[in-house]
Amino acid sequence: MSHKITALTVRDVRFPTSVEQHGSDAMVRSASVLCSVRLCRHTDPDYSAAYVVIHTACGLKGFGFTFTLGKGTQIVVCAVEAVATLVVGKSLQEIVSDFRGFYRLLTSDGQMRWLGPEKGVIQLAVAAVLNAVWDLWARAEGKPLWKLLVDMDPRQLASCIDFRYITDALTEEEAVDMIVKAQEGKQQREDQMLKEGYPAYTTSCAWLGYPDQLLRQLCTDALKSGWTRFKVKVGGDLEDDVRRCRLIRQMIGPENTLMIDANQRWGVAEAISWVSRLAEFKPLWIEEPTSPDDILGHAAISKCHSRVMFKQFLQASALQFVQIDGCRVGSVNENLAVLLMAHKFQVPVCPHAGGVGLCELVQHLILFDYISVSGSLSNRMCEYVDHLHEHFTSPVVIRDAHYMPPKDPGFSCEMLESSVQRHQYPEGEVWKLNISK
Amino acid sequence: MSHKITALTVRDVRFPTSVEQHGSDAMVRSASVLCSVRLCRHTDPDYSAAYVVIHTACGLKGFGFTFTLGKGTQIVVCAVEAVATLVVGKSLQEIVSDFRGFYRLLTSDGQMRWLGPEKGVIQLAVAAVLNAVWDLWARAEGKPLWKLLVDMDPRQLASCIDFRYITDALTEEEAVDMIVKAQEGKQQREDQMLKEGYPAYTTSCAWLGYPDQLLRQLCTDALKSGWTRFKVKVGGDLEDDVRRCRLIRQMIGPENTLMIDANQRWGVAEAISWVSRLAEFKPLWIEEPTSPDDILGHAAISKCHSRVMFKQFLQASALQFVQIDGCRVGSVNENLAVLLMAHKFQVPVCPHAGGVGLCELVQHLILFDYISVSGSLSNRMCEYVDHLHEHFTSPVVIRDAHYMPPKDPGFSCEMLESSVQRHQYPEGEVWKLNISK
Repeated sequence: MSHKITALTVRDVRFPTSVEQHGSDAMVRSASVLCSVRLCRHTDPDYSAAYVVIHTACGLKGFGFTFTLGKGTQIVVCAVEAVATLVVGKSLQEIVSDFRGFYRLLTSDGQMRWLGPEKGVIQLAVAAVLNAVWDLWARAEGKPLWKLLVDMDPRQLASCIDFRYITDALTEEEAVDMIVKAQEGKQQREDQMLKEGYPAYTTSCAWLGYPDQLLRQLCTDALKSGWTRFKVKVGGDLEDDVRRCRLIRQMIGPENTLMIDANQRWGVAEAISWVSRLAEFKPLWIEEPTSPDDILGHAAISKCHSRVMFKQFLQASALQFVQIDGCRVGSVNENLAVLLMAHKFQVPVCPHAGGVGLCELVQHLILFDYISVSGSLSNRMCEYVDHLHEHFTSPVVIRDAHYMPPKDPGFSCEMLESSVQRHQYPEGEVWKLNISK
Repeated sequence: MSHKITALTVRDVRFPTSVEQHGSDAMVRSASVLCSVRLCRHTDPDYSAAYVVIHTACGLKGFGFTFTLGKGTQIVVCAVEAVATLVVGKSLQEIVSDFRGFYRLLTSDGQMRWLGPEKGVIQLAVAAVLNAVWDLWARAEGKPLWKLLVDMDPRQLASCIDFRYITDALTEEEAVDMIVKAQEGKQQREDQMLKEGYPAYTTSCAWLGYPDQLLRQLCTDALKSGWTRFKVKVGGDLEDDVRRCRLIRQMIGPENTLMIDANQRWGVAEAISWVSRLAEFKPLWIEEPTSPDDILGHAAISKCHSRVMFKQFLQASALQFVQIDGCRVGSVNENLAVLLMAHKFQVPVCPHAGGVGLCELVQHLILFDYISVSGSLSNRMCEYVDHLHEHFTSPVVIRDAHYMPPKDPGFSCEMLESSVQRHQYPEGEVWKLNISK
């Protein structure tokens, strides 16, 4: 069967997370959403997705999306529509038999490369489309994405990666060698994952806007549910941060793990002085202390928009943890390059998640990393945020603070059609009610 | 008068430069356009602009644009429409009295910052809007933009710059000091510019696709017109590059200046080996040898998308020349930061130009740099490409290979309304005729 792609549709789906804060039952969840982004000056954080469906001649569909915020979605939708013209008419077989070529076609289109290259809106649009292609491929093979990757021949895996601009850090031959070497013990690791799952940490306990009482309550609940790793948002007010970090460290005790996240709040000097005040609470890492483009200014960890940026952060020893993202870099193809480079530089990968569906996506990548690349769980964990999972057909399953490997075929990208219709902007029911938007 | 902004319109204006190659008279000019971008894999290079007009209550208008390619324009237009909502209703006075705040409002909008920050489509859209604001301001003052900047109080100049993320390289106090120090000799430099103009170099002689015969002819003509500095496109085929560089070096002699431009063609190792073969022709610089994001991989020069990237290239001594751009960074505000940092690091600024209207824009910035910041012409020159000037109401004036300072009020952004209407996509006359597009 050829799986010829006959159409690619994209919809603007927005969840009114900045409006719901005025609700009552939804108070806690919405406040968490609100506070998570306020520090980034995301004052109106309607968590959103540019949601892609690929249609094929045989009826099989692929689903994909990228995570955005509110009115930014319409810009990404416009970019996806432009990228779509490069996809429709091709067959899945044609694409995956030269996936590197297809990746380059999308990231190097003559008229759109100028808008990046490989960054910002264009990269988000390419990620949404490629996520749908990978979902389609996994569905065609009847496997969850992580399993498709784990079972794939090392040469074919490497052939999905565009090594342009990174061969000074990682060549194709090195990549193949690394994957071949990691075959040892693969089956045991896969069995282990299916039984125990992949360790997660929670960001749902300590958003910036929470009163101390709520923070205490959430920590108590989380400890009872088996959570041992906690991330705290900081960067609003220093004395406030000191008090909150002290409280949480007291709650979770010295053995559990604490991370802090400043959401790009500081300049370089400010970051250094601020963080030294918080050092007594022994954070494992400081996330996004400054501009995400500032390689030389970084002393810690960062999210990056492409393999070229990740390469330099690694080369410059400017990060101690790599946070991959399912929507911000060029989908699975580019994440493969980042996972392999991180392994070469022996830096642990701890995926970024949250938003809309980011947990659903990255669980596949981190399972693949453990089973087929790094083979290690040391200093590794995957972020977990507890919201918006109810809109997905195959939501993540967390058990004892671990991600349990998904079993449904695909990349876990599909949303409930009823959720999509209700939240489509501006015509969906949710938005008709929120006329103030 | 309050200059209250009542509307902001944006139009998708495309010049069919990839189609015109089939014309006859236009052959040479169109071939030049075509070849300039082919190496970037811009195979369908319709030079385009997202063209902005700001309307005010008193009837004064501000014009601005950003340079794009073909279908990429519709994505930028969509982004400009989103940014416009932040501008309409404000007055010019309100904006310029806190220009840093306004810059941050545009670059840090909660729902759009996620799409960058400060890069790609969003940054291009912000640049188009800010270019129009600066044009409006200069018109309101009845001065060309360079003169508005030259006459501005040092503190007010510095107050237009967002120092966030760059204070480890340049603080506001340092910036003010530098501008104050450079006041000495300012009047003489301004007089000199008005008399002699700012030195330019030409990129119009040696596009990659030119046959040797044409190349010889164009070099001969340019030498006769007083040109002494020439840029050659390379990166297609090494033996071809060697032959063409040898030919041009022979034509222009050992005293004149040669630069080469690889348009992001190579990986790092490839760049080093390729460039060493061309070293015998003594190029002054090698432009864009690799990915524009690769700071550590750069051994030469680069165009960057923000002050955060420029800062690091300077800190890492990864470039020997800074190429500013009128559309790719955040307009005048961010270019001021880059000019000041370049001066602090003692790296000469040689603006990037060409495209649509880039020459018209950067001439203002480089005049300001000479008169009010660097005070030096050593190793400095501004790129010149000879096309599409006929569509502007105040096109650049070149005399003896020098840019003559513009005298009309504004930022030279305004296009002829007839040109805009003819080239508007898809409804303009030019596009109706080119139905194949």
